[in-house]
Amino acid sequence: MKKDVLIIGAGGVAQVVAHKCAQNNDVLGEIHIASRTLSKCEAILESVREKGAMKVEGVLKAHQVDAMDSAAVAQLIRDTGAQIVINVGSAFVNMTVLDACIETGAAYIDTAIHEDPAKICETPPWYANYEWKKRDLCAEKGVTAILGAGFDPGVVNAFARFAIDQMDEVKSIDIVDINAGSHGKYFATNFDPEINFREFTGTVYYWEDQQWKETKMFASGKDWDLPVVGTQRAYQSGHDEVHSLSANYPQADVRFWMGFGEHYINVFTVLQSLGLLSEQPVTTAEGLEVVPLKLVKAVLPDPSSLAPDYTGKTCIGDLVKGVKDGQEVEIFVYNVADHKEAYEEVGSQGISYTAGVPPVAAAMLVASGEWDAKTMRNVEELDPKPFFTILDEIGLPTRVKDAKGDRPWNA
Amino acid sequence: MKKDVLIIGAGGVAQVVAHKCAQNNDVLGEIHIASRTLSKCEAILESVREKGAMKVEGVLKAHQVDAMDSAAVAQLIRDTGAQIVINVGSAFVNMTVLDACIETGAAYIDTAIHEDPAKICETPPWYANYEWKKRDLCAEKGVTAILGAGFDPGVVNAFARFAIDQMDEVKSIDIVDINAGSHGKYFATNFDPEINFREFTGTVYYWEDQQWKETKMFASGKDWDLPVVGTQRAYQSGHDEVHSLSANYPQADVRFWMGFGEHYINVFTVLQSLGLLSEQPVTTAEGLEVVPLKLVKAVLPDPSSLAPDYTGKTCIGDLVKGVKDGQEVEIFVYNVADHKEAYEEVGSQGISYTAGVPPVAAAMLVASGEWDAKTMRNVEELDPKPFFTILDEIGLPTRVKDAKGDRPWNA
Repeated sequence: MKKDVLIIGAGGVAQVVAHKCAQNNDVLGEIHIASRTLSKCEAILESVREKGAMKVEGVLKAHQVDAMDSAAVAQLIRDTGAQIVINVGSAFVNMTVLDACIETGAAYIDTAIHEDPAKICETPPWYANYEWKKRDLCAEKGVTAILGAGFDPGVVNAFARFAIDQMDEVKSIDIVDINAGSHGKYFATNFDPEINFREFTGTVYYWEDQQWKETKMFASGKDWDLPVVGTQRAYQSGHDEVHSLSANYPQADVRFWMGFGEHYINVFTVLQSLGLLSEQPVTTAEGLEVVPLKLVKAVLPDPSSLAPDYTGKTCIGDLVKGVKDGQEVEIFVYNVADHKEAYEEVGSQGISYTAGVPPVAAAMLVASGEWDAKTMRNVEELDPKPFFTILDEIGLPTRVKDAKGDRPWNA
Repeated sequence: MKKDVLIIGAGGVAQVVAHKCAQNNDVLGEIHIASRTLSKCEAILESVREKGAMKVEGVLKAHQVDAMDSAAVAQLIRDTGAQIVINVGSAFVNMTVLDACIETGAAYIDTAIHEDPAKICETPPWYANYEWKKRDLCAEKGVTAILGAGFDPGVVNAFARFAIDQMDEVKSIDIVDINAGSHGKYFATNFDPEINFREFTGTVYYWEDQQWKETKMFASGKDWDLPVVGTQRAYQSGHDEVHSLSANYPQADVRFWMGFGEHYINVFTVLQSLGLLSEQPVTTAEGLEVVPLKLVKAVLPDPSSLAPDYTGKTCIGDLVKGVKDGQEVEIFVYNVADHKEAYEEVGSQGISYTAGVPPVAAAMLVASGEWDAKTMRNVEELDPKPFFTILDEIGLPTRVKDAKGDRPWNA
């Protein structure tokens, strides 16, 4: 059942994916990594070798590819013989990589929704604008495509499914993402500032009373009392998983909450109010055309540079409310990760770690057949238990907190 | 004694200067205005004609000149026959224009210190780095040069002199500049953002205990209870007049305080902390070289666009403490100006108005002979009374507040 893997992308998440594939290459087989910049792939493989991450001897190889060129990706899949493609490239390449998988029959796994560079926060549900249009084709050709298999979206979708499976009726799903870590800089984003800010400058969509509702970033905030990280303020944000969970559980309210400190919000508000987060070019008095967001990206710290000094923990979980045996019940399913431990293990900070480990677990389940669905699936449409079992083993243990206490999910 | 005037510059302050010269062309004679961009000069003259500002029929003419080219300025002085040059161009052209005046014998008046574009906050006293090096030459050639004859520096130097003349001994001079107006924008600077921010990003020098001391912008704040505008918080800032007053009154402490709201400070702090106020270029991921400060300037409102909606008042004054007949005394000499009135009169906001009216008063005193010093002078070295008399008449009345009450300076 062993399947060779091709990783698309060479950023912070790709680094985690490469390390985790190497640590599990007895299940996964050959590891290929490809991006536009060959040297970035080679640097990742060098770090895999430095840590001695390969579980068994095997192939570890870097390739150059323009992931926007579907034919080139398909050719690379054929050349490498990869049977699973883990796409952790930019949010702009999902569709070209997916098309290459459909063409070649390789399984496709990604961690975030497709984006058109020219558009921000399209109409909901987001998956229907791009990925789901290929669902019938995947089914017809028997191609496995697992969408949004990072942490959020990804593990949190499995958290929701796991909780809902224990209820007779689900009423609401609130996903809460808290990074209580500290990078020690005046200000930094945890991943590409351009993508990070794009998430927050448009409309925030959420699902309530069986319909789409809209708010603005930072307009709807709430304090959450969470395990390990304590009480933290989080704000309703637009996020991928709301768009698939609401389709699979239309009877439930689905909201996503992201934690932000006052300092982050202040800096964001100043930059946005001045027009410095705009993706539209402005012209200086000297006649130079500049996209403000690209200059802001240039002055901010490179997210990968944060890893060595990052301390503290993340807590990401789902508070699911529903009815069981006529009683109202609520379950909080969650994971706590540690920035410093992530850095020591794979050379990345905790945000990249939580995003990069789950798609490798998904790949292992495709390899074992358990998640080899032969069609397109969002994560909540797959059995969460084998997923949690692997995540427990490879670094992201799942816990449950409910009326009976706080414990491992399978205790 | 009527003398023809050449105005250098075509920004918001130049517009006020042109209007005020026109309103007093019975004293001043021909009015010439020159800048790098002829159309900006013509637009100013058009606004002078629209308001019917010319007191008597006379010459009103626009010219093109590169003020960094001293020979070209000298030629223009000869061609126009101007006997007084009012330099309200950029802070970078003082020395070339002054040289042209020295060469041709025309009187020179400016409103702010010379700056080298590549340097920020040079060592004190600032005037000694550039202007004062030409003092002996002015005296030798009998050329009148009045430095810093705007409001601050300028009128506030005369305020200090006026107060000190009533004391036996001066102990301290605190200049306080409060703009309690509102432009209705999220954020804007009252003059060129590039020059505005350059003032605040370096060391703040002040004179205390007969020596130069240093602080940082916004590190030293104090609430001031002032006429009309009420209690306002102001912060020690680096400013031109500290550098001449401390030379003329070394026995006194000399400090400059500028009012800032918390919102201004917050925006400034965010931009500065992120490196967005830097005058040094950075390179974007796409390889474009951008000076962050120039992009910030491009996204901020054009200061001249603020004028139509600007409301509220400014209060700028000197709190001078000293000894008279063995008693400790203090006098606050000040002016209150109104943004809306300024706009209605000359089409500019109050900050440009307070800066542009005083050099015209100075020019009128050069024309009358009262300030035709035949050497280089800072404003506190000249008799303040005829200056106040003209300012009373042309829009910036001086008031005094002390133990005897609050009243016009000559009441």
